[in-house]
Amino acid sequence: MAAQRIMARCDELARITATPGRGIERVYLSPEHAQVNRVVAAWMREVGMSARQDAAGNLVGRIEPADREPGGPALVLGSHLDTVPDAGRFDGIAGVLMALETVRMLRSPGEAETAAPGASGTVVLPFALEVIAFADEEGTRFGAALLGSAAVAGTWREEWWQLTDAQGVSLREAFVEFGLDPGRVGEAARRPEDLVGYLEAHIEQGPELEGREESLAVVSSIASARRFDITVEGETRHAGGTPYDMRRDALLGASEAALAVERICRAEHHIIGTVGQLGAFPGAVNVVPGEAKLSLDLRGELDETRDRVWQQISDEVDAIMARRGLHWRAQEFHSAPAVFCAPLLRDVVREGIVSTLPRGADEPAQIFSRAGHDGMALAGITDVGMLFMRNPGGISHHPDEFVSAQDVRAGLQALAEAVLHLAAERR
Amino acid sequence: MAAQRIMARCDELARITATPGRGIERVYLSPEHAQVNRVVAAWMREVGMSARQDAAGNLVGRIEPADREPGGPALVLGSHLDTVPDAGRFDGIAGVLMALETVRMLRSPGEAETAAPGASGTVVLPFALEVIAFADEEGTRFGAALLGSAAVAGTWREEWWQLTDAQGVSLREAFVEFGLDPGRVGEAARRPEDLVGYLEAHIEQGPELEGREESLAVVSSIASARRFDITVEGETRHAGGTPYDMRRDALLGASEAALAVERICRAEHHIIGTVGQLGAFPGAVNVVPGEAKLSLDLRGELDETRDRVWQQISDEVDAIMARRGLHWRAQEFHSAPAVFCAPLLRDVVREGIVSTLPRGADEPAQIFSRAGHDGMALAGITDVGMLFMRNPGGISHHPDEFVSAQDVRAGLQALAEAVLHLAAERR
Repeated sequence: MAAQRIMARCDELARITATPGRGIERVYLSPEHAQVNRVVAAWMREVGMSARQDAAGNLVGRIEPADREPGGPALVLGSHLDTVPDAGRFDGIAGVLMALETVRMLRSPGEAETAAPGASGTVVLPFALEVIAFADEEGTRFGAALLGSAAVAGTWREEWWQLTDAQGVSLREAFVEFGLDPGRVGEAARRPEDLVGYLEAHIEQGPELEGREESLAVVSSIASARRFDITVEGETRHAGGTPYDMRRDALLGASEAALAVERICRAEHHIIGTVGQLGAFPGAVNVVPGEAKLSLDLRGELDETRDRVWQQISDEVDAIMARRGLHWRAQEFHSAPAVFCAPLLRDVVREGIVSTLPRGADEPAQIFSRAGHDGMALAGITDVGMLFMRNPGGISHHPDEFVSAQDVRAGLQALAEAVLHLAAERR
Repeated sequence: MAAQRIMARCDELARITATPGRGIERVYLSPEHAQVNRVVAAWMREVGMSARQDAAGNLVGRIEPADREPGGPALVLGSHLDTVPDAGRFDGIAGVLMALETVRMLRSPGEAETAAPGASGTVVLPFALEVIAFADEEGTRFGAALLGSAAVAGTWREEWWQLTDAQGVSLREAFVEFGLDPGRVGEAARRPEDLVGYLEAHIEQGPELEGREESLAVVSSIASARRFDITVEGETRHAGGTPYDMRRDALLGASEAALAVERICRAEHHIIGTVGQLGAFPGAVNVVPGEAKLSLDLRGELDETRDRVWQQISDEVDAIMARRGLHWRAQEFHSAPAVFCAPLLRDVVREGIVSTLPRGADEPAQIFSRAGHDGMALAGITDVGMLFMRNPGGISHHPDEFVSAQDVRAGLQALAEAVLHLAAERR
């Protein structure tokens, strides 16, 4: 029943998109962002939570414990509602909806039947529950990811205000247009003492659970990541008249660099590098490109390996560009250290998963997440735990992204059990 | 004097651009196209020509012979006024202005002094002179080059109406917006019997004359060219979660293809292939590209070599894509056979160049043009001859593009002498 509601709501939110009829696109501070927050706020109130939009555009729901003073520390459940371009309907979204259903399941007994929809409720737990629907995990619009969770973690950076989207709109302008006050973004930050921890359910975005034929996994750590904008400079020339020996073709240098990233990372374990963007300028069919730009997304289980591989890539790109008479530079616009999930939260997530398995089943998988998550930012202020759900084909960031209702049902049970186990630890 | 005027006018026309303060951009059917036509029409009238814009937006000036019936066959001098993005100020433009100065030089003696500026004049030649400033040689806006000269040659194609620019405006819509009637484009076509031939002066757009330390060359032929839009299809995937073995990364396939074009063409003589455009989609930093698009511009001295090399490239790209689990397709959007300049016009151009050289100088260079020119289209209806001027560094399609006033002066003398030699042959 709850899992069916989650699946139906994933379908419903998929219609809130800037690109109707194609894959979903719902980016930070867009009209679609405002709309999805309104819809999900109503669903928060439906399960007895208060709901507010914070100073960075995150949506925050809260429900107090039945037998404690209101305003005490909260366990935060959540995930994000923004998407990449041409996205699927589950990445982030399923986790937010599972958090809401967990609240519904843990609401004080009897309330669900007696309270009017939307009446403020309570949970029988030794802490408050919050659900945060983060507003910018993907970084689609402004290039820097985890803006929403960074605001909550109090690590917002002044230089971000100058970031611009593809239309040249700055983050500062987008804030104002959305109705937020850039000067007040600090108010979104939470204090460590007000938080019990952060628990998130998410699709795996990888093929490991499918390969193991299992529904759920404990996340052991979240990838260390660095992102770069790389610019290659050569010389713009006429495509007909310029012999190869006189060319300094930036596109060919960029192509070699992209292939070098693949070659170097393939030779490593637990490192993956992706060039997701490549453009050549001026970009005319009959002009040798004088400039090329590419992005590099580099992830690894350990910061040290990641940094060593970046050095290898840099050396190789130096050699490529020197051979071609090109210049290059890299600007790092995102860097996040590897985040290890807190032992206690790993343990309660594991207990939650075990509760969904037949007796005698294998120990739940412990998986390292190559994908980034809001927990990376939140780890600065509180303990983080994560639960992965099987993702057929490992297909994510794509309209074919999927998670089965059955795995969502198991994940929901595991998440609620994990909260109860944590409550037992805290009593 | 005339050469100085040409240089000053190249500067003046450089200010008619969609991108003030940067390299010139003046594309087909743009406001800048209309403006440059108005300015140059006034200059045509100043040398005693009538001036009209034809049904495709080309600007056509005409002056009748002094001692023949008006309306007879005309020798056409010309070049184009449109540019690539971030262009220089001489490509095409210098040729149009040299054509005008040639008319001024050949105007019936005495007229220049006595006639009021703008009064219709005559030339002492056995044929009329026309100057055509072609409106779309580069193909910058709609991808298909030589639209202006194709209209004059009567080879306009119905399918071109559906071509769109980067903003999605169709060629048909752009025609209407410019004030032209798509239904009347056929009226721009000229009959072979109304033409004596076509002579064009142009910068070399290559380094050969500079290497020889010579000002001018006879063009022997114009490159055979084919242009393709290539699409590579893979699978859009999450950059973190998808191991290399599960990726079908369209950008990496496209990068390998671009490098294969370079490798194969480098191994050939008189063949050059250029990838001027490359884009990856969806184009997010954290998404493995599921689609990539690239352009290919392939030129050769001979159609047969060019076609054999395209076959080689296709076979190599087949192998690349098969290895990576990608699909690809190529759409040819431009194809032009090699055009050989007419022996008589090559000869008069040679005579013209010889007239600028000291006695006993070396025979003028005969150069094969790897760049395309309007003459490729006009060769279908009349004889074509071309004159090249030295282009320092071979730099063209770039703000640093240059030709010296001294070489323009020599070119102008050679062009006028060539017309007189042709007149002598025709009397």
